[in-house]
Amino acid sequence: DAIYEVAPIIDGVLVDMNEFLQRLKRNLKSICIDLPYTQDELIAFLKELISKNKLKEGGLYMQVSRGVTSRDFAFTKDIKATVMAFVYEAMIEKNPLATSGVNIIFVPELRWKRRDIKSTSLLAQCYAKEMVKKAKAYEGFFVENSYITEGISSSAFIIKNKTLISKPLSNEILLAIRRGKILRYAKEFGLKVQERAFTVKEVYEADEVFISAATLPILAVVKVEDKLINNGIVGEFSKKLRERYIKGMKEEASINKTL
Amino acid sequence: DAIYEVAPIIDGVLVDMNEFLQRLKRNLKSICIDLPYTQDELIAFLKELISKNKLKEGGLYMQVSRGVTSRDFAFTKDIKATVMAFVYEAMIEKNPLATSGVNIIFVPELRWKRRDIKSTSLLAQCYAKEMVKKAKAYEGFFVENSYITEGISSSAFIIKNKTLISKPLSNEILLAIRRGKILRYAKEFGLKVQERAFTVKEVYEADEVFISAATLPILAVVKVEDKLINNGIVGEFSKKLRERYIKGMKEEASINKTL
Repeated sequence: DAIYEVAPIIDGVLVDMNEFLQRLKRNLKSICIDLPYTQDELIAFLKELISKNKLKEGGLYMQVSRGVTSRDFAFTKDIKATVMAFVYEAMIEKNPLATSGVNIIFVPELRWKRRDIKSTSLLAQCYAKEMVKKAKAYEGFFVENSYITEGISSSAFIIKNKTLISKPLSNEILLAIRRGKILRYAKEFGLKVQERAFTVKEVYEADEVFISAATLPILAVVKVEDKLINNGIVGEFSKKLRERYIKGMKEEASINKTL
Repeated sequence: DAIYEVAPIIDGVLVDMNEFLQRLKRNLKSICIDLPYTQDELIAFLKELISKNKLKEGGLYMQVSRGVTSRDFAFTKDIKATVMAFVYEAMIEKNPLATSGVNIIFVPELRWKRRDIKSTSLLAQCYAKEMVKKAKAYEGFFVENSYITEGISSSAFIIKNKTLISKPLSNEILLAIRRGKILRYAKEFGLKVQERAFTVKEVYEADEVFISAATLPILAVVKVEDKLINNGIVGEFSKKLRERYIKGMKEEASINKTL
């Protein structure tokens, strides 16, 4: 058993760092794993990883597993957790998918009930992503009783009549750390915000649909199953929100650089 | 992602072998992993493992993971799966729990919807077993809408008015490979058999309750939460079924020895 995190790297600097560390600690606590380093030691270790790899733009993957012990289901206590991390290149700002948009399909919600815990027990997600790959789609929206829970590896949003709709946080979805910023930016652009679950029908009838994930800030969904959204082109608010989000990341990177 | 199996070893020989191999292949197929060995090669490898460890009685743990590839949710194809196995000592026949019986508690069903796939994405089970440990119990029964699905790491059975009740196989529970034999033996002892789900209330009111797992064939449950079952002692049929089951294992071991 292990907890993992993914965070974006911009201008050679980790961003969304506070949210990342907060969620990591919360998740580790929820399954009784102690991080064997202080926060400062961890940050120093991650900075070294980025600089040794000379990484400018991309992602950080980090995993904390329970540690070396005999096989037992109940949590072993008082052992040292194993921390593993790697970085990888990815085009965050100049991602061509940001201008083309992406397509999604609906997949049945198969996951366990504690989806707020970001663990490596990911077979349900892998299983669903395989369905997406077979359908030649980019991402899938999990559907439970006609409602969207979230994307397989992303958060899901829709815009209808200048209102941004986003499912509130609960055990049913991942504690999305970029969601708060997106709702704030939406208000800056004059959108109303509704925090509630939305249905499959509402996705089909939305003015705009978009997803967001660590290294994929706000990608417009321009096709849902066989139906075009916004005539198959990236919508106005998806574009604005993405630009605003990336501006925010760069600002954070320039602040974090000096830390 | 990985599929695992556990099988008992009696008199230095693997038993329940056909069921074990059948379920392994079915599970690997369900998540598109190819076993990199023929069945004969695999059996030879497992026999060597047992003999090199001079193991007389205990268990085999075997795991087949997808293989070495880059991190991606969708299944990577055309890579060589990694096979890992170890054996461990365990008292199967002379397990003191067989005479004392065990206690169980009820835990909420948190698992994903494809519980028939025996995968290493086991956090829901670990999480539940931790609750069991805290309650100083031996095992937990998963409860979904007042019905028992199964034990956290075992199959669950009840006997009421000379009828053995066992939940039929489906995606909701593990494809229990010892269940078929238990139902057959029950009929030998004049028990009727009902294949249906049973409720929490029925567990409390049962004449006998028992669990079964690879190296734990038929352990009587003598206490459920705070309530004694059969006055806290191992019931007649639980005892008979266990003896019959172990006799069957020994017979299979003596046949397999000559293979």
